Amino acid sequence: MAVVGAGPAGLLLSHLLTAAGVDCVVVEARSRAYVEARLRAGILEQPTVDLLRAAGVGERLDAQGLRHDGIHLQWPGERHRIDFPALTGRSVWVYGQTEVVKDLVAARLAAGAPLHFEVSDVAVHDVGTTSPRVSFTDAGGTARRLDADVVVGADGFHGICRPSIPAALARTWERGYPFAWLGVLAEVPPSTDELIYAWHPDGFALHSMRSPSISRLYVQVDATERIEDWPDERIWEALQTRLGLPGWTLGTGPVLEKSITGMRSFVSSPMRHGRLFLVGDAAHIVPPTGAKGLNLAVADVAVLAEALLEFFSSGSQTLLDGYEQRALDRVWRATHFSWWMTSMLHTSGDGFDARLQLAQLQQVVSSTAAATVLAENYTGLPHALVGGPR
Amino acid sequence: MAVVGAGPAGLLLSHLLTAAGVDCVVVEARSRAYVEARLRAGILEQPTVDLLRAAGVGERLDAQGLRHDGIHLQWPGERHRIDFPALTGRSVWVYGQTEVVKDLVAARLAAGAPLHFEVSDVAVHDVGTTSPRVSFTDAGGTARRLDADVVVGADGFHGICRPSIPAALARTWERGYPFAWLGVLAEVPPSTDELIYAWHPDGFALHSMRSPSISRLYVQVDATERIEDWPDERIWEALQTRLGLPGWTLGTGPVLEKSITGMRSFVSSPMRHGRLFLVGDAAHIVPPTGAKGLNLAVADVAVLAEALLEFFSSGSQTLLDGYEQRALDRVWRATHFSWWMTSMLHTSGDGFDARLQLAQLQQVVSSTAAATVLAENYTGLPHALVGGPR
Repeated sequence: MAVVGAGPAGLLLSHLLTAAGVDCVVVEARSRAYVEARLRAGILEQPTVDLLRAAGVGERLDAQGLRHDGIHLQWPGERHRIDFPALTGRSVWVYGQTEVVKDLVAARLAAGAPLHFEVSDVAVHDVGTTSPRVSFTDAGGTARRLDADVVVGADGFHGICRPSIPAALARTWERGYPFAWLGVLAEVPPSTDELIYAWHPDGFALHSMRSPSISRLYVQVDATERIEDWPDERIWEALQTRLGLPGWTLGTGPVLEKSITGMRSFVSSPMRHGRLFLVGDAAHIVPPTGAKGLNLAVADVAVLAEALLEFFSSGSQTLLDGYEQRALDRVWRATHFSWWMTSMLHTSGDGFDARLQLAQLQQVVSSTAAATVLAENYTGLPHALVGGPR
Repeated sequence: MAVVGAGPAGLLLSHLLTAAGVDCVVVEARSRAYVEARLRAGILEQPTVDLLRAAGVGERLDAQGLRHDGIHLQWPGERHRIDFPALTGRSVWVYGQTEVVKDLVAARLAAGAPLHFEVSDVAVHDVGTTSPRVSFTDAGGTARRLDADVVVGADGFHGICRPSIPAALARTWERGYPFAWLGVLAEVPPSTDELIYAWHPDGFALHSMRSPSISRLYVQVDATERIEDWPDERIWEALQTRLGLPGWTLGTGPVLEKSITGMRSFVSSPMRHGRLFLVGDAAHIVPPTGAKGLNLAVADVAVLAEALLEFFSSGSQTLLDGYEQRALDRVWRATHFSWWMTSMLHTSGDGFDARLQLAQLQQVVSSTAAATVLAENYTGLPHALVGGPR
């Protein structure tokens, strides 16, 4: 089996397959240092953590990850907590994607399993047949070829696998947003025990964290804003305004990194073409509100791993044939949830929208049922979601 | 006390106040026959029914109203029931607004309480003082004047009371929708025991009813459509397509009435200016999806009646001063719910929207928590909703 892409999805899938004795080669265009440092998501939902533990890569997560039993929802003058275990029996963990990748790379290298960084000229061939191939040039400059039974595209939104599906067969759904997240990584202990999602007339703000000494903070900005126009003082001022609450102080510290990230919703189908299977960002993108991106990739992997293990052990393609539908049901649930969280919390400048958002937030914090809907989605629905509208 | 408007809100409020011994005069521009025949909402939520019963006007409602313990949510190939009592302990009743009005007019006339139909030249004066007045010309052509302690504007969206609040003090929030409801009243027993809300690529459809022999059916059409372009056969065909399900047949019959109704969300504040208080459509409009309009007017009345009774019995204005805020919290909850139901069920032609809608519908029918959120709102939240964002 060949896996294109050594992000969390490709690494976890190859880890699960390799552990079951399936030959599996992973190729990655970037360097090990790059993929281990690439700053991305930082919240793992319960089913993700359960899977990482079951896969034997949960040791450092359990030692260093921060279990969170809730989040705070805020608007001017009010902050309310959503209690996840009380509502769902589940929690989430603060543990960066970079750490997950490090753990999976370490496990793969320790097992002596093939993992090629810094490859170039990657191409997939004959995926419509039962003998697909992946060709690439390795880091040493040697042209190589992998003959496989199955090729998995885990190479992200800009990867080469999705475009290899004939355009005539593909359909995409997309939504842009007129705002972006300006994110900073700051060397200051978090001023909150759990994440704060704040609605404010000036725009959304989020107080997250990476560790007991590193805060991760975001403010909504226009999609057209440039990072040059946001000196650190302006960022801290915006954070103070939007996250402020009487009796609460936002700690500040040196900004280690800052950047502006655009937001989009994107779903592509099919997620499978012949013997090519797409997982994670290669097939779908969600805006970051609600922290579903990495978790959704892991859910794809969970479903596909089960199907591949059946295929490689028995030759049966039944689960492989069901992969797209099982995965898509969850993809659309997460796409809806991410859109909903985004729509509820980001200001548009329209006064009617603002009142709807406040009415929605008020419902979430005052109705146990509404809080449960948020908590169910945030902490992660079971990996096997079956049924639903097509 | 003077009440402008003899719709359900004005009639119920005057009924409650008159029963408590408060002198109360109601003036209405239309004829009795007109207000008793004006076809409007047909679903009463639990708190509305509870209030009508407590006010002694529930007898015919209990005899002829149809209690419904759920609704059906549908999309192509699937129909799911939401069980209201199981989720909330509450139900709704099918009982037309026309019937509520008839009951309240009859009660008022039986009590010998003043109720002037077919008045003209209605105007309110000096509402900013403690001696407001209402002037009008009665049906016999005599100019009259009511000196009151309080004036209540229950005269609907196009009434004269809201515009009497100085424009500099008023703020409105509004949202238009690019679609409308084409509704038919048909002489055919309903083909369903409970309402069917149907999502379909062609547009929303709703199967409702007025009695065991009269069906009320709606299809989403463009806001620009003309009723002339919808002969009965075209309407039935659209209903068959959108409501169709294998093994289920839509009964058809003579169309008694048909019309196209635009949809809007509208909220105006303040709902009180001096001694003038607005209730119902005079202050806010919701789209019909979710059946909140009449019920929201009744909720305003419940809150205002309590405040007025305190004022007239003790002279205290404490509850009157709190009317706007107590009412608005619920107004925004209902405005959000009506917008949400509308947005979930009406097609926009956008493919991403359609998939979000199906994901949302799937969540409502598969998550008990999500179903409960719908049921809580549909069956009616308690009349006193306090707190919440401003």
